Amino acid sequence: MTEITLSSDIIVKLIRSSASDSGVVQAAQVSVKGENNPGTDMPRLINYLMESRHGSPFEHNSFTFYVKAPIFVFREWQRHRMASYNEMSGRYTEMLPEFYTPNEHRKLINAGTSARPEMVPGTSEQLQLVRDGDFRVAQTAWDEYQARLDAGIAKEVARSVLPLNTYSQMYTTVNARAMMNFISLRTDSEDAAIRSRPQREIEMGAEQVEAAFAAEMPQTHTSFVKHGRIAP
Amino acid sequence: MTEITLSSDIIVKLIRSSASDSGVVQAAQVSVKGENNPGTDMPRLINYLMESRHGSPFEHNSFTFYVKAPIFVFREWQRHRMASYNEMSGRYTEMLPEFYTPNEHRKLINAGTSARPEMVPGTSEQLQLVRDGDFRVAQTAWDEYQARLDAGIAKEVARSVLPLNTYSQMYTTVNARAMMNFISLRTDSEDAAIRSRPQREIEMGAEQVEAAFAAEMPQTHTSFVKHGRIAP
Amino acid sequence: MTEITLSSDIIVKLIRSSASDSGVVQAAQVSVKGENNPGTDMPRLINYLMESRHGSPFEHNSFTFYVKAPIFVFREWQRHRMASYNEMSGRYTEMLPEFYTPNEHRKLINAGTSARPEMVPGTSEQLQLVRDGDFRVAQTAWDEYQARLDAGIAKEVARSVLPLNTYSQMYTTVNARAMMNFISLRTDSEDAAIRSRPQREIEMGAEQVEAAFAAEMPQTHTSFVKHGRIAP
Amino acid sequence: MTEITLSSDIIVKLIRSSASDSGVVQAAQVSVKGENNPGTDMPRLINYLMESRHGSPFEHNSFTFYVKAPIFVFREWQRHRMASYNEMSGRYTEMLPEFYTPNEHRKLINAGTSARPEMVPGTSEQLQLVRDGDFRVAQTAWDEYQARLDAGIAKEVARSVLPLNTYSQMYTTVNARAMMNFISLRTDSEDAAIRSRPQREIEMGAEQVEAAFAAEMPQTHTSFVKHGRIAP
Repeated sequence: MTEITLSSDIIVKLIRSSASDSGVVQAAQVSVKGENNPGTDMPRLINYLMESRHGSPFEHNSFTFYVKAPIFVFREWQRHRMASYNEMSGRYTEMLPEFYTPNEHRKLINAGTSARPEMVPGTSEQLQLVRDGDFRVAQTAWDEYQARLDAGIAKEVARSVLPLNTYSQMYTTVNARAMMNFISLRTDSEDAAIRSRPQREIEMGAEQVEAAFAAEMPQTHTSFVKHGRIAP
Repeated sequence: MTEITLSSDIIVKLIRSSASDSGVVQAAQVSVKGENNPGTDMPRLINYLMESRHGSPFEHNSFTFYVKAPIFVFREWQRHRMASYNEMSGRYTEMLPEFYTPNEHRKLINAGTSARPEMVPGTSEQLQLVRDGDFRVAQTAWDEYQARLDAGIAKEVARSVLPLNTYSQMYTTVNARAMMNFISLRTDSEDAAIRSRPQREIEMGAEQVEAAFAAEMPQTHTSFVKHGRIAP
Repeated sequence: MTEITLSSDIIVKLIRSSASDSGVVQAAQVSVKGENNPGTDMPRLINYLMESRHGSPFEHNSFTFYVKAPIFVFREWQRHRMASYNEMSGRYTEMLPEFYTPNEHRKLINAGTSARPEMVPGTSEQLQLVRDGDFRVAQTAWDEYQARLDAGIAKEVARSVLPLNTYSQMYTTVNARAMMNFISLRTDSEDAAIRSRPQREIEMGAEQVEAAFAAEMPQTHTSFVKHGRIAP
Repeated sequence: MTEITLSSDIIVKLIRSSASDSGVVQAAQVSVKGENNPGTDMPRLINYLMESRHGSPFEHNSFTFYVKAPIFVFREWQRHRMASYNEMSGRYTEMLPEFYTPNEHRKLINAGTSARPEMVPGTSEQLQLVRDGDFRVAQTAWDEYQARLDAGIAKEVARSVLPLNTYSQMYTTVNARAMMNFISLRTDSEDAAIRSRPQREIEMGAEQVEAAFAAEMPQTHTSFVKHGRIAP
């Protein structure tokens, strides 16, 4: 019997990027002045674009990330269509015996409604119930998966018993405009003009995406936050 | 203990459409003649567009489908970005105790390679192994899911143990050009210039999509098949 | 010498649509309840979707328009990428001797800045200057175009002298979500949370698009206006 | 009277890129093996992806170009929706007195049909006719444009007389998959499985795009050519 592993991590690594605040300015200035026009106040121009929702100058860049997360996170992430995705395939390769389970920081109880969730912490008994259940179901499913593969069943058929918290991996590439839309919808922030209520696990990924965005395009990120975290 | 249900069906219903072969002709003719130009040989024009890969005239239409299928099918389907999707949400509503399992027609064994799968039938013992395993894991996972909900755990946390063969439901809207691309990649046909090797369960959905396409746009469908089932 | 025609019209005709408010509700409800759930308060649900920026339920519909407008309008219109276009081609067919010129309602003077234009009426002398110039340049260009065609020059080469106010024609298909984005950016309204300053000629087209939208999806349109004319 | 300039150049400069053949391999391999798997035969894998039309691994990269070309070229270029564009705006800035005219290499006569053009050289008299006409109409239009601006007419109104061969400028960003589609449709090559018949002026731009693509991703470009110049 294979030993399965449980983890509470959502891993996001910036693999490469071609992005800068000055690239936004360069693209925006072609509208008004032709190819070269150095003497611009960058923060002022970026704030003007963000405020007036001129979004296209924020598209001339790209970020490629490696992401390792449970399948239920990928299900939400890949609904964002203005991006590119390549994910590990359970048809082509054997899945790994790694499963997500919440840690003690994960709020387990919805004290709000379905439409407006307000998550609050669970008791330690509730956390234990979830973690034990995650282990037990994952072990049962994994053993079944292995028994099928041992019996010669195709990987694409065998995998159907694996739970939604099975870890998968992907590369994704996105530009800053689409990234702002993703961050806007997948993080919950007091600075947001329109509050989003993402599931915590995708938010853990989105926070790491936002950190990479802020590092590569600090003026653009500052302006995004200042204007209510709404993608232009 | 809730009784769970196993099924081998992939359900696709055409909810509404606004599509016709004449709409293709109308859009194509604006390129050459202005608004009105009745006297055209429709099959010849459609074949010309298909052969020379002038794809845009096939976009002025829409098809809306209701789909009920296991989550592993939706994972593949929703990777097609030129379409619209709204799916049942395990965050907002309780999932249903319905799970997919292969029937006797499902080929279970890959006699090819991962990159070039050639599926062949399994033995009745192999089928029984899969069906029993599907039932056992689904029942275990469903009981755990219910126990969590009974303990007050949020739906979004509770659901993570559910297997990939849990049924979900969606509405999807697509135009004929994107639909041809979907059919091209998600059906395996001897008429295809480039052979695709889709997983059988999404192919069962794609075959129903193709039937609706052929019914609403018969000349376009005929031309698509004639030109090697490649989307223009 | 061919007689040229000047016109001040932007023509938009709804050719066909597959759209309704109830289709929005249907798509949204699959998220929460499965296939059927009749007893919903439609305006309340649509307002909830609009306010919380759940945009995807507004995509399961389509509108196909015929548009006749000068090329400088098409240049702006076709920058909206979430739509389908087929336009009259100056490579495949001879252009028509029809040109746009402003009428007496067109404000001719920008009393604001480039970034924040505030258009105000011109004098009758200014209007006459523009209209005379439009006629004179169009006639010169058209005569040159005809002389080239008469000399056996290819249409694609001959057309390069035609002015930006030459009329062209297209079919375009769009869903309500993308249409709201188009209307938001291409109309100027006191109800708008973020003011847009479109060129008047594309606004004349966008107003007709908005009228068709309001006729086919009245609750959705009302909710769009109520929420500051921002596309969800 | 301002002196106008005629030119026969289409200028394309690669401003920045984040692209490599190894990035294609990296994205493709996540499907089969997880994060790291160095020992792969790169040309073989890229050829497999190209042949079987697995296009998504070619999306994890970006190229940003500066383009200077006449408006009739931009009209075609910007119809490619899987790309980002920012163009000089005749609403926000005064256009430049630069106009395109064919040089002696430009084939002026269509010896084929509209649907299947076969361009052949014109006589020196035909070339002179075109070049003289380009100059005469451009000068007439430019003088009218200046007279309007001098009379206080807004730039967005004044520009409508400018001809389609007026030069404009843009930045555009695109990934390799979309770029292959663009090159496939906008170049004419004997290696092409499906022959395209682009207008020569956009082909002059597409050839420069292809040169940048071949320099940054040589294996991918070689494979693209080998497989009939069809985008995967």
